[in-house]
Amino acid sequence: IGSHSAETDSQTEWTDVQKKIIPWKNGTPSLDLEMAFQDRAAKLGKSNSRLIVVASLIDKPTNLGGLCRTSEIFGASALVVGSLHYIQDKQFQHLSVSAEQWLPLVEVKPCQLVDYLQQKKTEGYTIIGVEQTAKSFDLTEYCFPEKSLLLLGNEHEGIPANLIHHLDVCVEIPQQGIIRSLNVHVSGALLIWEYTRQQVIKQKQQK
Amino acid sequence: IGSHSAETDSQTEWTDVQKKIIPWKNGTPSLDLEMAFQDRAAKLGKSNSRLIVVASLIDKPTNLGGLCRTSEIFGASALVVGSLHYIQDKQFQHLSVSAEQWLPLVEVKPCQLVDYLQQKKTEGYTIIGVEQTAKSFDLTEYCFPEKSLLLLGNEHEGIPANLIHHLDVCVEIPQQGIIRSLNVHVSGALLIWEYTRQQVIKQKQQK
Repeated sequence: IGSHSAETDSQTEWTDVQKKIIPWKNGTPSLDLEMAFQDRAAKLGKSNSRLIVVASLIDKPTNLGGLCRTSEIFGASALVVGSLHYIQDKQFQHLSVSAEQWLPLVEVKPCQLVDYLQQKKTEGYTIIGVEQTAKSFDLTEYCFPEKSLLLLGNEHEGIPANLIHHLDVCVEIPQQGIIRSLNVHVSGALLIWEYTRQQVIKQKQQK
Repeated sequence: IGSHSAETDSQTEWTDVQKKIIPWKNGTPSLDLEMAFQDRAAKLGKSNSRLIVVASLIDKPTNLGGLCRTSEIFGASALVVGSLHYIQDKQFQHLSVSAEQWLPLVEVKPCQLVDYLQQKKTEGYTIIGVEQTAKSFDLTEYCFPEKSLLLLGNEHEGIPANLIHHLDVCVEIPQQGIIRSLNVHVSGALLIWEYTRQQVIKQKQQK
């Protein structure tokens, strides 16, 4: 578990929760896990968003570790990775600064993604691909639903064509760089931020 | 210069520009450099913003390389670093993916920062510290002036107290992480994005 400043109570509680980090299987959405974490988040005074960040297509431990840190800081409800083995990677740990202890991590292998996305659709999530396509919305114009699932693309190949069909919408970040596009951790961070910003504004308007 | 897909014309032009990357000195703002790059950016079809990103307090080559890539992609007018030697660093280059060839880099050592910030104030820039203070604006509520200079803090110490006095304003990113705050490259990226988003919206409203 590693050392941090939580009291013994939280440590014990965490151990209970961590046992529930199990690979996602067809038809058995990890509701137990999500509920346990929401309960935990409430106790810690964190507001829990309805944002799921899916990073199963990402290969680099540094990008996954960075996304873990950023997702935790903005209170995402889960980070989905292609393999839980990444958590043991030194580069992942270096970048995540132990955020994986405070954020639900769910394992969904790339070959399971179609089923996972379908399942989340039935739970009311809008499936949002972060990808440049002819039909993509500009991030400056897209309004995120409360239940948003962000699918991030692979570092080199983006989101494969067979998955594009299963998305509800694509969103792209307007860029004017000469050579390359944004790093996938940064792209993900900007969408997580934009979702958060819109939620904050909505909550203020409701008051 | 390295290999990329620009034509020979641009290469030659670039060589001319690169000679002008000189350390910033008191009283000699690098106007030549900025003008040369603005001219170059116009030729390349890039819209050049009036955003300066100051990363002189940042120590890690990975963070500087990442900021270089992100700043270039959003068309910042310059990235200010504590030393131009970072450009030779392998980690910097790995993260910057050669963006330093397309973005003006200016060297301002930490000990020169007070003078540099004063100079930029006289040029009409608003000096914005990215830092959590009692008086910081929430990023969801801050409206960026067209001429904005972002001062990013050190990875461990943030922005030192003596520099805080020279800022026009501090802006903070609302965060709810349990253990740590955002990585400085990500913090910088979110402010660069937010500046860009606001400028895009302004430009659309003017049409």
